[in-house]
Amino acid sequence: MSTELTVSNIVLVAKQHEIEELRHLEARAQLVGDIGALIHCLQNERGASSLFLASAGARFGDTRQALIAASREREGALRTSFDTLLQHSNHGSAKLYSLMAWVLLGLDALPALRAQVDAQQLGPDEAVAAFSRLISGLASLIFEVADTTVNPGISRSLVALFNFVQGKELAGQERAVGAAMFASGQCDAPHQQRILDLIDAQERNFQVFCEFADETSLAPWQEMHVAPYVVILERLRRVLGSAKPGAALDANQSDKWFECCSDRLAAMWSLQCLQVERLQAQCAHLIAEAERELTDSEGLLTQLRNSPPPSAGLGERFFDPNIPIDHALRFTPTEGGAPPVERSIIEVLQAQSERIANMETELDSARRALNERKVIERAKGVLMARFNLTEEAAYKMLQKTSMDQNRRLAEVAEAVLALPAFFTPQPATPRR
Amino acid sequence: MSTELTVSNIVLVAKQHEIEELRHLEARAQLVGDIGALIHCLQNERGASSLFLASAGARFGDTRQALIAASREREGALRTSFDTLLQHSNHGSAKLYSLMAWVLLGLDALPALRAQVDAQQLGPDEAVAAFSRLISGLASLIFEVADTTVNPGISRSLVALFNFVQGKELAGQERAVGAAMFASGQCDAPHQQRILDLIDAQERNFQVFCEFADETSLAPWQEMHVAPYVVILERLRRVLGSAKPGAALDANQSDKWFECCSDRLAAMWSLQCLQVERLQAQCAHLIAEAERELTDSEGLLTQLRNSPPPSAGLGERFFDPNIPIDHALRFTPTEGGAPPVERSIIEVLQAQSERIANMETELDSARRALNERKVIERAKGVLMARFNLTEEAAYKMLQKTSMDQNRRLAEVAEAVLALPAFFTPQPATPRR
Repeated sequence: MSTELTVSNIVLVAKQHEIEELRHLEARAQLVGDIGALIHCLQNERGASSLFLASAGARFGDTRQALIAASREREGALRTSFDTLLQHSNHGSAKLYSLMAWVLLGLDALPALRAQVDAQQLGPDEAVAAFSRLISGLASLIFEVADTTVNPGISRSLVALFNFVQGKELAGQERAVGAAMFASGQCDAPHQQRILDLIDAQERNFQVFCEFADETSLAPWQEMHVAPYVVILERLRRVLGSAKPGAALDANQSDKWFECCSDRLAAMWSLQCLQVERLQAQCAHLIAEAERELTDSEGLLTQLRNSPPPSAGLGERFFDPNIPIDHALRFTPTEGGAPPVERSIIEVLQAQSERIANMETELDSARRALNERKVIERAKGVLMARFNLTEEAAYKMLQKTSMDQNRRLAEVAEAVLALPAFFTPQPATPRR
Repeated sequence: MSTELTVSNIVLVAKQHEIEELRHLEARAQLVGDIGALIHCLQNERGASSLFLASAGARFGDTRQALIAASREREGALRTSFDTLLQHSNHGSAKLYSLMAWVLLGLDALPALRAQVDAQQLGPDEAVAAFSRLISGLASLIFEVADTTVNPGISRSLVALFNFVQGKELAGQERAVGAAMFASGQCDAPHQQRILDLIDAQERNFQVFCEFADETSLAPWQEMHVAPYVVILERLRRVLGSAKPGAALDANQSDKWFECCSDRLAAMWSLQCLQVERLQAQCAHLIAEAERELTDSEGLLTQLRNSPPPSAGLGERFFDPNIPIDHALRFTPTEGGAPPVERSIIEVLQAQSERIANMETELDSARRALNERKVIERAKGVLMARFNLTEEAAYKMLQKTSMDQNRRLAEVAEAVLALPAFFTPQPATPRR
């Protein structure tokens, strides 16, 4: 059906377009929920796999099988979400699809990885690294959804959620590394440093989370800081952090470590679910609001259909220099003078323009947080390629420069990207 | 038709999605061309209307009628483009529709404006201001298209074009204001200052144009600086700029002023057409390239259909810690080892990820130029509302602070936006 080109029809189409975009956003919130749930299951499976391998298959075999079944169920749900996105190819960005393909490569590879764990062909560290790689790909998907969201409220919630999931992932890695250390019965320097790095990196993520989360999420987060398992965790962290390399560790503490880490992760998981629920409620609320506005606008504009075209009267008003217009096209109708029909169309358009302008401004702050991360990640990539560094070493190089020069980390990263002559990535050489 | 969820299908869908987005971009390039052409015609009509009114209807009556006919033709073309966008509501952003509605309000109001000019119910300044308002709305549409373009090459071209159109618009205003000054036979201080401001603002736009334009556009731009009409223009600019307020101006110079400004605008118009042609060629080239890549990928991936699922083999490669992966998911397949089918899918995905990552980086520089303008426009809006200033006065306030504090204009604008307590817009009060 063809729609006549009139101002009021464009206003209505813009509103319908907005509702459709919000519906896509609702589907994305579902996707983000599915991703978060699979990450949680894979974290559990990673922990159990690490303990299973560290104990040479003696322990955690049954737990691991139960956790694999849980992972599989969540994987199925995520594949359904992926499938929906694949069938509606206009809903995603090129980058989203590229990340999806990469994640699917990993999901397809999971059975082979599990078979290697079954046969104990991997060390605990290798298994942890493999699961972590897949989880990191899954987290990138959440980041991409946050990055392409145009609604400021949802964008803020997604920035908070992404950083929370990243922080939780690092907490999961901490559990796996620490459990392997205790189970091995001996402290070694690389694992010890890794634990300290993981604690540090968690702090950074949770800081951004606190900046962007709303009250509903912040209250349970504060409560988590006084929970009993935190006391145990901090004591065991101290044991791991202060032991001399080579010193013996009490292998029986492995369970206690695993348990308090798991309690903390379970609390995080509850909070993650709460955030996803809130996100979905936010989307539903926005859709209901936009639909109500559409109905209101339709009501206001219906009378136009039975009135003469508004051109003549509106003309004088459009070009009236006494009605100020700024770049955002907010113009203030003067009091009295105009008949109600004209006023209504100008008011609807004005309200719409005003809302769009406000949303743009609000969106900027959420975008800034995401952009800083992108710049830092890109600068890390340049340094990794240029100096053949690990990700952690590249990060430390940025961090050290930031502290030495008393400049923000993002500024240092910008500077690295602005000096391509010094840092152009070399042709990649296999590290074998 | 349902597509099976496999890595290779996602890779192909991502490619198809990219081609579809490029097609939308091609339609946008058409829209931008139509907008630019209408702006050009309205500029001509504005110049003739101003002279017609300044001469109390004695001159430029016929020229004006011919120019109105030309404007109408271009308006028809633009309405067709708008109509296409309205029928395919998924192609635009909420903001694009809001701007379209506003512009349509102005187009609907044009006949009433022309009737007022016919009846000489307006002064030349009022007529210039009315046309300028509509042209500024049209230019905002070009800005919005540039702002929502995700291809870095096209985005750069659109940033260059937008700034060129803005610069040309200011040159058109200069022609109209100067012609009215000469025709009135007397110099007055406000118009004199306006001419100087317009010359200044043109410089700023053409600077950004030069930064983002490619060689094809820069060469004719350089040639324009040594054209004969520029010598005449500069002499007449000097006459207008140095005359004492109240001093007599030679009304016969009005034609010469109009002529040399028109020659300059005609040259700009040619260059604008060249830019639009280049833009369309760029889009066509990108589509052809993406389609070739799609065919190549399909060729490479076809063999997968007849091969066993790649899960097992790829699995080891996905989790192989010796294949480094950075945040952009660029991973380097090791030499030898993998069968050709596996290598091809990894290579296709890798090439796609790499291209997306590079495009993101390139896009940033174009976005930065657009964002700076947005921040400055927003800060102007805040100052206008807060201190009840005109746009020009708000700009000067920013500029003065920038010079006094030796900080970039965009930084000052950021600071204005960061201090909401000082600058919160007051509820708008009608200025009548």
